[in-house]
Amino acid sequence: MGKMRIKNLGFSSGQYLVVIDDSVAVELGVRPHERVKVSYNGREVVAIVNVARNIPGNVILANEDVIKELSVKEGDYVNIEPAPIPLSIKYIKDRLRGVRLSYDEVKAIVEDIVSGRLSEIELTALVTATHYLGMSIEEMYYFSKAMIETGEKLELNKKPILDKHSIGGVPGDKTTMIVVPIIASLGYIIPKTSSRAITSPAGTADRVEVLAPVELSIDEVREVVLKTNGCMVWGGALQLAPADDKIIQVEYPLAIDPFFVPSIMAKKGSVGATHVVIDIPVGRGAKVKTIGDGHYIARYFIEVGRRLGMQVVCALTYGEEPIGYAAGPALEAREALMTLMGKGPVDLIDKATNIAGMLLEMVGVRYGKETAMEALRSGKAEKKFREIIEAQGGDPNVMPEDIAIGNKKFTVYAERSGIVIWINNKAIAQIARLAGAPKDKGAGVLLHVKIGDKVKKGDPLFEVRAEVGYKLERAEKALEEMKPIGIGRPQEQMLISKIPYIIRHERMPIIER
Amino acid sequence: MGKMRIKNLGFSSGQYLVVIDDSVAVELGVRPHERVKVSYNGREVVAIVNVARNIPGNVILANEDVIKELSVKEGDYVNIEPAPIPLSIKYIKDRLRGVRLSYDEVKAIVEDIVSGRLSEIELTALVTATHYLGMSIEEMYYFSKAMIETGEKLELNKKPILDKHSIGGVPGDKTTMIVVPIIASLGYIIPKTSSRAITSPAGTADRVEVLAPVELSIDEVREVVLKTNGCMVWGGALQLAPADDKIIQVEYPLAIDPFFVPSIMAKKGSVGATHVVIDIPVGRGAKVKTIGDGHYIARYFIEVGRRLGMQVVCALTYGEEPIGYAAGPALEAREALMTLMGKGPVDLIDKATNIAGMLLEMVGVRYGKETAMEALRSGKAEKKFREIIEAQGGDPNVMPEDIAIGNKKFTVYAERSGIVIWINNKAIAQIARLAGAPKDKGAGVLLHVKIGDKVKKGDPLFEVRAEVGYKLERAEKALEEMKPIGIGRPQEQMLISKIPYIIRHERMPIIER
Repeated sequence: MGKMRIKNLGFSSGQYLVVIDDSVAVELGVRPHERVKVSYNGREVVAIVNVARNIPGNVILANEDVIKELSVKEGDYVNIEPAPIPLSIKYIKDRLRGVRLSYDEVKAIVEDIVSGRLSEIELTALVTATHYLGMSIEEMYYFSKAMIETGEKLELNKKPILDKHSIGGVPGDKTTMIVVPIIASLGYIIPKTSSRAITSPAGTADRVEVLAPVELSIDEVREVVLKTNGCMVWGGALQLAPADDKIIQVEYPLAIDPFFVPSIMAKKGSVGATHVVIDIPVGRGAKVKTIGDGHYIARYFIEVGRRLGMQVVCALTYGEEPIGYAAGPALEAREALMTLMGKGPVDLIDKATNIAGMLLEMVGVRYGKETAMEALRSGKAEKKFREIIEAQGGDPNVMPEDIAIGNKKFTVYAERSGIVIWINNKAIAQIARLAGAPKDKGAGVLLHVKIGDKVKKGDPLFEVRAEVGYKLERAEKALEEMKPIGIGRPQEQMLISKIPYIIRHERMPIIER
Repeated sequence: MGKMRIKNLGFSSGQYLVVIDDSVAVELGVRPHERVKVSYNGREVVAIVNVARNIPGNVILANEDVIKELSVKEGDYVNIEPAPIPLSIKYIKDRLRGVRLSYDEVKAIVEDIVSGRLSEIELTALVTATHYLGMSIEEMYYFSKAMIETGEKLELNKKPILDKHSIGGVPGDKTTMIVVPIIASLGYIIPKTSSRAITSPAGTADRVEVLAPVELSIDEVREVVLKTNGCMVWGGALQLAPADDKIIQVEYPLAIDPFFVPSIMAKKGSVGATHVVIDIPVGRGAKVKTIGDGHYIARYFIEVGRRLGMQVVCALTYGEEPIGYAAGPALEAREALMTLMGKGPVDLIDKATNIAGMLLEMVGVRYGKETAMEALRSGKAEKKFREIIEAQGGDPNVMPEDIAIGNKKFTVYAERSGIVIWINNKAIAQIARLAGAPKDKGAGVLLHVKIGDKVKKGDPLFEVRAEVGYKLERAEKALEEMKPIGIGRPQEQMLISKIPYIIRHERMPIIER
């Protein structure tokens, strides 16, 4: 094509991106989302083409990723020509047809995801196709391994390295904040990285952030772990398995996550974990509905772990109601701190000591759960927790009453007497989010009752906390049409759910293109 | 959030698009591909959010679609706040789960496609999901209807209106250039819009463009049709069923087209067609491989047509080799012109008169094929063709020898004697494209033989034509590893194809997000 004048789009997106005029694309024989090679002064970069109108014919708009890579200045003349389609696109098309991929093919795809060489169309097609076709254990292993290899690693040069992960879905699950200090207090290393909330009222990173900074660099993380045996940090900026972060960006708006096994296992592999417990909450209101499905999924984690050289144990846990009583970053941080100080809810204590106990038994401790319980009861875990908080830059002397909770509130009362027979996890999460969580740290829901509790008409069921008035009102309004807690005798509330009208479509023969 | 200074990205993309800094997105509580409402001086627009780095915190980058809609100038302060998720996204998520969509839901999706309110992720997920789930006849009808309603229409206020369409896949198919003048010469209206080549060496629009302009406005199209009864124009810029064009942009890089029935039917509906023949080429080298599949697909066209108030007849045609001898815009335009002038290949004449005949019989003509043949033989069709060419702005007196063919060429000769037992459509198309087609109008492939022909060792099989030397070389080089034409006795060439190793994956239970 020859020379074009480069103009800076003024932003950086982690992808090499250029925009050219319609007519230039036709002239080049390049279609939208195909690639061009842009070169300048001996440097070159392959960028994804966006086609637009109203751009002067001799101008190419480029984002800062391109500008920087080429060391070019706005107004300089660059050379532009069509670039061949990356091989990974061929593999993605194979995958769409149902072909199993080899490790080299998966690696090529993952490398191109990380380097931004795939367009959103191609990445979305990969994710959606995988949602329908599923993945073999082999492919999960390939994706995990490739994700680990294309990212940063936390090098501790120690063994064993313990870790845990919950597949999520249950509000109020602050188990990590109890498990990490228990394990670390017993002399084992547990470098825990967590995510922020996506659809829930709080992720572990949001909870911990109430008490200490969580956005550490990888060197800072290493320092904290070498000093205290543990950490509780946000994994998002560490570039551990960054392909995963790009895949999640596509999965999230579609509310599907076919890559969840490789996603989780890659994060564990990136911190060098050797012994891992995966928590799979099971139940009507959880992501996994039946114990059978839980066993099925567990097999994938265990097998993929084995191939990665990790020992994995899965814990199926009761997921039909929130863990403890609090949902929302500050409310949960406070509940976790109180639990470490000896005043915790029984379900949270049982879950955390079971998971910690499994980890301990994996590395040879004889009575895992009892040992974990002792670490908690004796105050060793609390002491370790405060050490970790301090090492991350928080106040080690923080007390529950120091934690600011939203001061706007309202309480929902029982409209009848009976037994709490169900709590709707999704409704609780939604109310907490409407009240401002996770952005407003002090917002959330505080339960007064759990499943099985007897209540009398007029008893408080839960309170909603917010920092901002209109958010409280918004939550209150939404509650008019929601029923987060069911009270009665089981026989009186027979309808569990209405199944939407879903029919598999007739299939047409797929024609070739 | 409040006020932000707007900056112009400098291009228009048919979508409302803004780019904000990472930190601003977090502050707003908006994730990439979610939407914000941008308002200025009483006007507002809902735009899709792209998140980037290195943008000043008080700056929002917007494309020209946003700038224009708001009547805002660079540097002005606009208001920005999170916008609710369009309802169509919920319907797309339903569709991902396999739910059948109602007309209102489909309409909402199609409206949002046309107005650019869907992100590429959402549109790609819809397309990919439909590839796996298929579509019911009902949904094909809904999509067709919604696509028609959200686009321009060619209003002729006449009936009947005839039309034809080929689902494509066979190189050299210039049938339309024969059918349109035959029908129009007999006094029937046939406002034919066509596409340009996507993966083939020439689309009908590319072929016709050798002889006359094809990029007419809708008013110009109407004028040509009212004057001559017919037209042969490019449909791409007419905004007929524009949702289809956006869907194709996603289908193309993935090499899938689950929307092909509604895509085609919407284009026919947009020109007000009442009687339509759909050509379905069948055969090893065509898109549809078996006659059974052809019948199956035909049923969808016929039924969707019926619901749209159109009479549809489908023609299954022989698709195992190119139509006629020429592939490439100018070569094909020349072959079409010669056919109209009485010197055409038998397969092209047979195909065109059959299809024209079916159309004629649909509107009550008794001996359709014979009538069509007579119009061709008598020179009536040629006369009409020249009228249409003139009305579109071309030279009505053009002769075959006026058409410029690429003067760079090489010929491929038979390496053995025998019978031509197969011609690989894909290979012919690929060679023609490597030689420069469709961009270089004079490039392409000219066959010397067709299936069933006897050849002697050393006889010419086909020649490749190019306008540019390096493209000819590129085609020549590719031919070293390709075998476009098979010669022998059938028994001697038993291997038809190697089937790649495709296995359906084990399925995991799909977990909720």
